[in-house]
Amino acid sequence: MTPLDKLIAYFEKFPGIGGRQARRFAFHILTLKKEQVAELAELITSLPESVSECSDCHRFFSPSYKQSNTRCSICADEARDRNKLIVVARDTDIQAIERSGVYDGLYFVLGGTIPLLSAVEPGAKLRTGAFRALIAERLTHGLSEVIFAFAINPDGENTGRYIDTVLREIDGSSTLKVSTLGRGLSTGSELEYADAETIKNALRNRN
Amino acid sequence: MTPLDKLIAYFEKFPGIGGRQARRFAFHILTLKKEQVAELAELITSLPESVSECSDCHRFFSPSYKQSNTRCSICADEARDRNKLIVVARDTDIQAIERSGVYDGLYFVLGGTIPLLSAVEPGAKLRTGAFRALIAERLTHGLSEVIFAFAINPDGENTGRYIDTVLREIDGSSTLKVSTLGRGLSTGSELEYADAETIKNALRNRN
Amino acid sequence: MTPLDKLIAYFEKFPGIGGRQARRFAFHILTLKKEQVAELAELITSLPESVSECSDCHRFFSPSYKQSNTRCSICADEARDRNKLIVVARDTDIQAIERSGVYDGLYFVLGGTIPLLSAVEPGAKLRTGAFRALIAERLTHGLSEVIFAFAINPDGENTGRYIDTVLREIDGSSTLKVSTLGRGLSTGSELEYADAETIKNALRNRN
Amino acid sequence: MTPLDKLIAYFEKFPGIGGRQARRFAFHILTLKKEQVAELAELITSLPESVSECSDCHRFFSPSYKQSNTRCSICADEARDRNKLIVVARDTDIQAIERSGVYDGLYFVLGGTIPLLSAVEPGAKLRTGAFRALIAERLTHGLSEVIFAFAINPDGENTGRYIDTVLREIDGSSTLKVSTLGRGLSTGSELEYADAETIKNALRNRN
Repeated sequence: MTPLDKLIAYFEKFPGIGGRQARRFAFHILTLKKEQVAELAELITSLPESVSECSDCHRFFSPSYKQSNTRCSICADEARDRNKLIVVARDTDIQAIERSGVYDGLYFVLGGTIPLLSAVEPGAKLRTGAFRALIAERLTHGLSEVIFAFAINPDGENTGRYIDTVLREIDGSSTLKVSTLGRGLSTGSELEYADAETIKNALRNRN
Repeated sequence: MTPLDKLIAYFEKFPGIGGRQARRFAFHILTLKKEQVAELAELITSLPESVSECSDCHRFFSPSYKQSNTRCSICADEARDRNKLIVVARDTDIQAIERSGVYDGLYFVLGGTIPLLSAVEPGAKLRTGAFRALIAERLTHGLSEVIFAFAINPDGENTGRYIDTVLREIDGSSTLKVSTLGRGLSTGSELEYADAETIKNALRNRN
Repeated sequence: MTPLDKLIAYFEKFPGIGGRQARRFAFHILTLKKEQVAELAELITSLPESVSECSDCHRFFSPSYKQSNTRCSICADEARDRNKLIVVARDTDIQAIERSGVYDGLYFVLGGTIPLLSAVEPGAKLRTGAFRALIAERLTHGLSEVIFAFAINPDGENTGRYIDTVLREIDGSSTLKVSTLGRGLSTGSELEYADAETIKNALRNRN
Repeated sequence: MTPLDKLIAYFEKFPGIGGRQARRFAFHILTLKKEQVAELAELITSLPESVSECSDCHRFFSPSYKQSNTRCSICADEARDRNKLIVVARDTDIQAIERSGVYDGLYFVLGGTIPLLSAVEPGAKLRTGAFRALIAERLTHGLSEVIFAFAINPDGENTGRYIDTVLREIDGSSTLKVSTLGRGLSTGSELEYADAETIKNALRNRN
C-alpha cells in the first residue's frame, strides 16, 4: 500500500465518508499550499493536547488559560443549575440542546449508545464507571433530576434502559427524578404522515 | 380541447398529480376493460350519494343500512368518551389518530387550515359555524376537553390560534380544558438533527 | 366493500398511486361540484370512444372531424419520412422523441416491454402481429430503417432482442437497416459518477 | 479561534463537507489512538512528496522504486496506444474511464474546467501551457486523435470549446482527429424522462 492509499484508508474511516470522497480528500490536500498542509498536519497532531476532556461531563473542550483546565465552560459555570443532569450519547448532542436555549443544568457524555442487538457486554466502551462516580458524588450535593436525551430509535432506547438500571443501583432510596425527553410531533410534522407511536405520545403529552 | 385533454386537465387537479402522470392516468383508463371503465365512472358519479358527511364530526363516511344514516361509526359509537373532542383539519387526520389506538373520544373535521399569510377572512371556507353549534350543544352535555390536532407548521398553528379564539367566545365561563398535541422528539429523531424548537418542547415535555 | 372502498381500489391501480393517495383522490372528488363530478365521469366513460387507436402506429389519438379517423396526425402527415420507423414501448415515448424535434419519420407502439425474467411467452400481450403486418407492408414501399427506442434497462434490452428476431424473420433479404438509440453520456453527466457501461458506449460513440 | 476551531475550518474546506461533518471529523480524530493520530498527520505532511505529478499526463501517482519517477504507470506503459489522447478535467475522471476497460490510449489532466460565466481569463489556472507543449511534441510522434472527456454541463462544454481552439492553433495542418465522448441514453434511461437534448443525441448517434 502506497502512502496515498494509506491516507485514503484513514479518510475512509472518517464518519460518513466512502471510498470516492476519501480519494477526493487526498487530491484536495495535494492542491493546498505547503504551509497549509503543514498547518493541517500540525493541528491534527496537537488536537489531543489542545483539547481536554472535561473531568465532570467528559465532553471535549479547548481550555483557555483563564479557565480551569479540567472542567469545560458549562461545568465551570456557577450560574448553571447543578441539581439537573442531562445524559447524552455524544458531544454534538450537547450543542443541539444548548441551541434550544432553555436548559440551564449540567450534562454527562456517555460516549456512545448500546446497540439493541449486540453480543458486547452492555456499556463495555461507555463511560459507565465515570457516570456511577459522578452520580454518587452529586447525590450528596443536591442532584434531583437526571434527564435521558438519547435518539428515539432502538439503540437510543436500549441505552436509556441500561442507564436507568445503573441509576437505580446507585440511588437506592430512589429520591432521584428520572425523565426522558418528551416525545410528540416535531416541527413540520403533519398528522397524516406521523407514525402511530408518535401520535400516541403526542396525545399523552398534550398540553 | 379534445375530450382526452379535458380528462387530463381533471386528473392534473387531483392532489399531487402533474401533467405527465395525469396523461398516464388517461392511458391507464384506455387499457381497462369496458366493464371496468363503466364501473369506475359509475363509482365516481355515485360517490357523493354513496358517501355521507357525518352530521356531528362532518367527516365523510359510507353509511350502511344498519347504521344511522346521519352519523359516522365513531360518532354513533356509544362506547366513545363524549367529553373529549379532537379538532382536525381533514378526514385523513382522523385515520392517523385512530391508528395510534389510544384515543377514545370524538372528533370534529374543520375542513382545512387558515393560511398564516392570507387576505381571506379567517375561516371563510371552514366549518366554523358548525363548530360553534357543536361546541355550544356539547357544553351542555358534559364536554370537558377540546384537543387541537393540527400540523406543526405556520398554517396549523395559525388555525389553532383562530379556533382557540372561537372557543373562548363560546365558552364564556372557561370551564373547558383546551390542549394541543404534545410536541417533542418523534420516532427516529436524533438530537443532532433536531431543530431548536423541537428540543425546547422535548425538554418541557420530558417525563 | 363500500362504494368508497371500491373507488379507492380503482385509484390504487392507477400508475404510481398508493393507498393514501388513492384515498385522497376520493376525498378530492367529494370536494368537486356536482357538474364537475358528472363531467369527469362522462369523460371517463366516453374516453374509449373519443380516442382512437391509430391503425398504423397504434398510439391513441383524438380524431378531429377534418382528419382521417383511422390514422393519427403523425401517420397521416405526408411530410414525414415513410422510410424510417421508430419502435417504442408506449405512447408517452413518442412524445419524448417528438420534443427533441429532430426526427421526421414514423413510429410503432409495441404496447409494452418483455420482462427479462418472465414465464410468459414473449410478446404475448404486445402488438407483434400488427408489427409483423406493418413491416411486411412497408418493406414493399421503401422502408429502409427501423430504430429501436427502448429503455436502457434489462427489460428494454430484452424487448430489443426479441423485436430484432421478429424483424429478421420478416426481412429475409436483410435489406433493412436496424439501429438502436445511441448510448453515451446524457445531459448533466459527470464522468466520475458514470457507470462503466455508459463510458464504454460514450467512447465507442465518440464523434 | 481555538486550534479545534482552526482544524474544523480546514475540514470545512474539504470537498463536500459542511460545518457539522467537519466537527464530527475533529471528534473522530479525538477517538483515534496516539499512534494513529501521528501516522495520519505524517501521511498528510508527506503526501506532496510521496506523490508525484506525472510529467506527461500530470495526474498524481505514487512512484514505486522500480518505476520511472517522472511518469505514471499509464504513461510509462509501452503497450498503450500513443496515438490517442483523452483530455480530462481531473484525476478521478481517468479512473472512471479506466473502469470501462475499453480505452488503451493516453490521458492529459487539465486540472479543472473553465466556468461558462467567469471574469477569469480562460485557462488561467489550467495546465494549458503543458497541454500545448505535449500536443506539439506528440504531433511529431504520430498522435492522431484527441478525445475530450468533459462533463455534459455548461462548464464542461465551455472547456471543450476552449481546448478545441487551443488545439486548432497548434495543429495548423488540421491532421488531428478531434472528438468528444458520445452523448445519448445512459444506463437506466427511460425515454419518458430523458431530456430533449439527450434524445436528439441518441437519435444522431443511433447504431
